[in-house]
Amino acid sequence: MSYKNFPMVPRVIFGRGSFNQLSELLAPNRLSNNAPFIFLVDDVFRTNVNITSRIPIAYQDKIILVSTAEEPKTSQVDELVEDIILTSKERPSGIIGIGGGSILDLAKAVAIMLTNEGNAEDYQGWDLVKNKALYHVGIPTISGTGAEVSRTTVLTGPKRKLGINSDFTPFDQVVLDPELTNGAPKDQWFYTGMDCFIHCVESLNGTYLNAFSKTYGDTAYGLCKEIYLDGNLTKKEAQDKLMMASWHGGMSIAYSQVGVAHAMSYGLSYLLGTKHGIGNCIVFNHLEEFYPNDVKLFKEMLEKHNINMPVGICKDLSKKDFDTMIDVALGLEPLWENAIGKNWKKTITRKKLKELYSKM
Amino acid sequence: MSYKNFPMVPRVIFGRGSFNQLSELLAPNRLSNNAPFIFLVDDVFRTNVNITSRIPIAYQDKIILVSTAEEPKTSQVDELVEDIILTSKERPSGIIGIGGGSILDLAKAVAIMLTNEGNAEDYQGWDLVKNKALYHVGIPTISGTGAEVSRTTVLTGPKRKLGINSDFTPFDQVVLDPELTNGAPKDQWFYTGMDCFIHCVESLNGTYLNAFSKTYGDTAYGLCKEIYLDGNLTKKEAQDKLMMASWHGGMSIAYSQVGVAHAMSYGLSYLLGTKHGIGNCIVFNHLEEFYPNDVKLFKEMLEKHNINMPVGICKDLSKKDFDTMIDVALGLEPLWENAIGKNWKKTITRKKLKELYSKM
Repeated sequence: MSYKNFPMVPRVIFGRGSFNQLSELLAPNRLSNNAPFIFLVDDVFRTNVNITSRIPIAYQDKIILVSTAEEPKTSQVDELVEDIILTSKERPSGIIGIGGGSILDLAKAVAIMLTNEGNAEDYQGWDLVKNKALYHVGIPTISGTGAEVSRTTVLTGPKRKLGINSDFTPFDQVVLDPELTNGAPKDQWFYTGMDCFIHCVESLNGTYLNAFSKTYGDTAYGLCKEIYLDGNLTKKEAQDKLMMASWHGGMSIAYSQVGVAHAMSYGLSYLLGTKHGIGNCIVFNHLEEFYPNDVKLFKEMLEKHNINMPVGICKDLSKKDFDTMIDVALGLEPLWENAIGKNWKKTITRKKLKELYSKM
Repeated sequence: MSYKNFPMVPRVIFGRGSFNQLSELLAPNRLSNNAPFIFLVDDVFRTNVNITSRIPIAYQDKIILVSTAEEPKTSQVDELVEDIILTSKERPSGIIGIGGGSILDLAKAVAIMLTNEGNAEDYQGWDLVKNKALYHVGIPTISGTGAEVSRTTVLTGPKRKLGINSDFTPFDQVVLDPELTNGAPKDQWFYTGMDCFIHCVESLNGTYLNAFSKTYGDTAYGLCKEIYLDGNLTKKEAQDKLMMASWHGGMSIAYSQVGVAHAMSYGLSYLLGTKHGIGNCIVFNHLEEFYPNDVKLFKEMLEKHNINMPVGICKDLSKKDFDTMIDVALGLEPLWENAIGKNWKKTITRKKLKELYSKM
């Protein structure tokens, strides 16, 4: 038996207002005055002076505002990398992602592709990256995805939606400042937080689970219940705890895997562009047979927070569309093996997935 | 307000039998055939073939068996460093500690002192280390200390018992193999596990606590109760969970501090050479006024596991002896500030500590 040697984020700073220390965190990592820091920032912050004015710009440093209207694409990574190479005098000192899961994943992928040849799609899969990525920093502005701590960056490519999973993917530095999550729209707060809840459910109920992943998963799962069900927390407490839930939930995947919701959500996202958080929720809502207790809890959370989930998003799809989604979902073998076990192909048939997708 | 940028162990492997992968973990870090890996191994394993025969020795690599009859000393670190320099053709490729908290702390300190001038005692304190330590690996064979994940290495020097706290202290690699904890004597299993329980109590009840440390502390605290009180676990489950409790308990100190038990236990250890785990227990047993509920739980655990704690260890001490212990304890200002608050000097007087030590 061979265990994975898991790479952890080597530096983390946690605290309300810790974003103000970004300048001192970056300074020792500046390679030269001509080697800029590139800040990839979610363009929802375009007019948010509280964020943009506090980004420490010096020398040739540059802010690139990135739309996250769509899930991150391999082509988008390639374009960003080309733009950065063309406009920088020297190879950048580092890439800093400031935003949600999409921005964090883009920052990780861009940092990898600045030191590895070819196109981003060439590296979708497991352990295909050859060279150490550029120094890269993750600063989440919404909590739940676990992207700040994971060894993947999930991208939609021409052929598939799949992560660049590698030891070089994790950030070199993470800044956890719960204040930055102020002002996230309620729906997004819910769907992104549920990404964490669903991570935990899938990890804790998976066949890959060990004591390492279980202790992290139990912690994050408990925090999610406290935040989304118990409702006894102040706003600040809830922000702080959700940021930590996301962190621990991400760590829970270290030795485990996600499961049915993620596999099927990737299908929705690939075909329809459904964003990851809401896509997970749309799928999870119909997974009683796989995760009975937790789907019940999820429905209670939906009700408590008055969230109206989209319905009927698959009703007008063609047979070809269903086939596309089913192909993407079935391609994620480790997720199914974790969720169902080694013999998953006996029960997870194309017909079964068609039935499930048809309900959504 | 300025937050600490916490260094995390960048690589961790967890799993029963993962010790067998040590060779492949070390190989990429070998600098040359003349640059040995030095294995510092607790000499209780001298005749334990299950451990010693599985240590992967090649080229000039060397096993040094180290007695842990006494707490680690700065002079012991200096001697080990001198011995390694004199007997190695080149600066070693790395230091691997295999043992309990004492061995792990020695491995960390030796790795630091092989790249920093002077003597180990010069670096006791906070952030005094100038140069990156040698590559160093921690492999715990008993669980509870948190030394595998902490940024300190606690040493008894000529003047004081105090850690070398620095960003260069944490291990570069940790191997968490719960099988290695097979065969630890019951008393030691109890006292070392209680080190974790007491870490958590001190962190969770400290004034420094934030959501980061709290989530780790709550996790480890819950695991300790499950292991030492509930008693529904198989031996393997308990081993796995205690190894994770130690890990999370260590992480809980990241943004927090230990408290009264550790401060006073350092005094006992400095004067009497009391080992850290049992010393903590001897002190904690008398701290009802600081940690009422948890001291009650601790007494239940003592009873459940039929542990007979030493009593009267301070009964024949002189006034000078008490003064020495009190000086050591009061010198640990961050611990008192965490435990009691900024005004701790009002209540923590020499008289107060004398009274407490007299009970032990």
